[in-house]
Amino acid sequence: MNLVLLFESDFSDRTGLAVLEDRRFRHVVNVHRAATGTTLKVGFLNGRTGTGHIVAMDSKSLTMEVELVNDPPPPLPLNLVLALPRPKVLNRVIAAASSMGVKKIWLIHAAKVEKSYWQSPRLSDENLFAQSVLGLEQAKDTVMPEIMLKRRFKPFVEDEIPGIIGKNLALCADPSGSVPCPFNQTAPVTLAIGPEGGFIPYEIDLLIHNGFTPVHLGKRILRVETALPAVVYRLFSPDIL
Amino acid sequence: MNLVLLFESDFSDRTGLAVLEDRRFRHVVNVHRAATGTTLKVGFLNGRTGTGHIVAMDSKSLTMEVELVNDPPPPLPLNLVLALPRPKVLNRVIAAASSMGVKKIWLIHAAKVEKSYWQSPRLSDENLFAQSVLGLEQAKDTVMPEIMLKRRFKPFVEDEIPGIIGKNLALCADPSGSVPCPFNQTAPVTLAIGPEGGFIPYEIDLLIHNGFTPVHLGKRILRVETALPAVVYRLFSPDIL
Repeated sequence: MNLVLLFESDFSDRTGLAVLEDRRFRHVVNVHRAATGTTLKVGFLNGRTGTGHIVAMDSKSLTMEVELVNDPPPPLPLNLVLALPRPKVLNRVIAAASSMGVKKIWLIHAAKVEKSYWQSPRLSDENLFAQSVLGLEQAKDTVMPEIMLKRRFKPFVEDEIPGIIGKNLALCADPSGSVPCPFNQTAPVTLAIGPEGGFIPYEIDLLIHNGFTPVHLGKRILRVETALPAVVYRLFSPDIL
Repeated sequence: MNLVLLFESDFSDRTGLAVLEDRRFRHVVNVHRAATGTTLKVGFLNGRTGTGHIVAMDSKSLTMEVELVNDPPPPLPLNLVLALPRPKVLNRVIAAASSMGVKKIWLIHAAKVEKSYWQSPRLSDENLFAQSVLGLEQAKDTVMPEIMLKRRFKPFVEDEIPGIIGKNLALCADPSGSVPCPFNQTAPVTLAIGPEGGFIPYEIDLLIHNGFTPVHLGKRILRVETALPAVVYRLFSPDIL
């Protein structure tokens, strides 16, 4: 936790002080060894970042004076279209995407996504929010990604993808891609990543027909949690990362 | 599992047939729906890849005719020096490194590595081997990475690092690095990645003094499991990945 993300509800009274008593309280006490007098890096959800100076602490909570003076880091100009991963992997992928500054994520169905994955409690708003918070805290960001669930591949690709892509570059990471993934981009990109086992040829064709270019990252087939940072840090210039 | 990795011990009799009855058996039955007559992609530990044709199966085991005809993918020309991650993260990082073709990994101590991490049973030879196998199976590779444990930072950096680097590029991924990480490399690289919380200034200085250049990946601080694929796929040309 490189930044403590604060919410409206943390400012519980009219003093302007923030009171923490949950996971964040335990983390700053146990990991950061925070005490009265400690100053922590904080940020306000979807707002600015700054400092939180601990003015009081007991065994259950701490109280901070908060000063918010800096803008959060710029968002990554990436629309991420991701075949719904296994529930076990979903949390890590959402946290990683959030830490890299991705602000729009569409979790979509595909032939090789098991239908049962859509029943996972990890797809609840509460859990997706919690995982996104972990990523923001990691990267000192405050701006919550928006996560959309699309349970039908064809209508999503045909009806929504063209509007999402607009006039920007759209790439589909696929080991069968004949072109290597470009690099040092600074303009917005829409990126699609398939499920374990890949998109099937019909899906690749539909993606191509709707604006995507399949690109490869080399010869090796990577897991989605490895492929995502690999593509993002290949694709974009460090200037905007 | 994109390849079933086979071991000497799987070839238990003089027929030349391989018999599987462990995790790999259950996986190919439950996930790949393999049956008698199915042909699977296989590879022999540290050897060639090819096909395994299932000639017999019962509820506990399968028997394959194996033909090994192809070389495994080329290794990644990367020496990876990694501050020992939290045990919870270690397995994933080893499997990811193995899937990317890393063949030499030094797990090292650093000021911000908790001493207790060195007691983790996940550092056993058996577990490191098992996690490496998962990465090889993912990337259709057969060549087992070598993992070395270095519990003392200074003697390792001073006495061993210069010989490991040789005349090649040596980079230390660090958010404080003033130079962006280079890209499209094809020559060997030694890469150091710090612990959560980073290398301390004394450690960075010692790394620089012994041949490393600190490079950054952008403004965001990434977790090690995100940073590793990010650097590797930023650093190397897709031609050799």
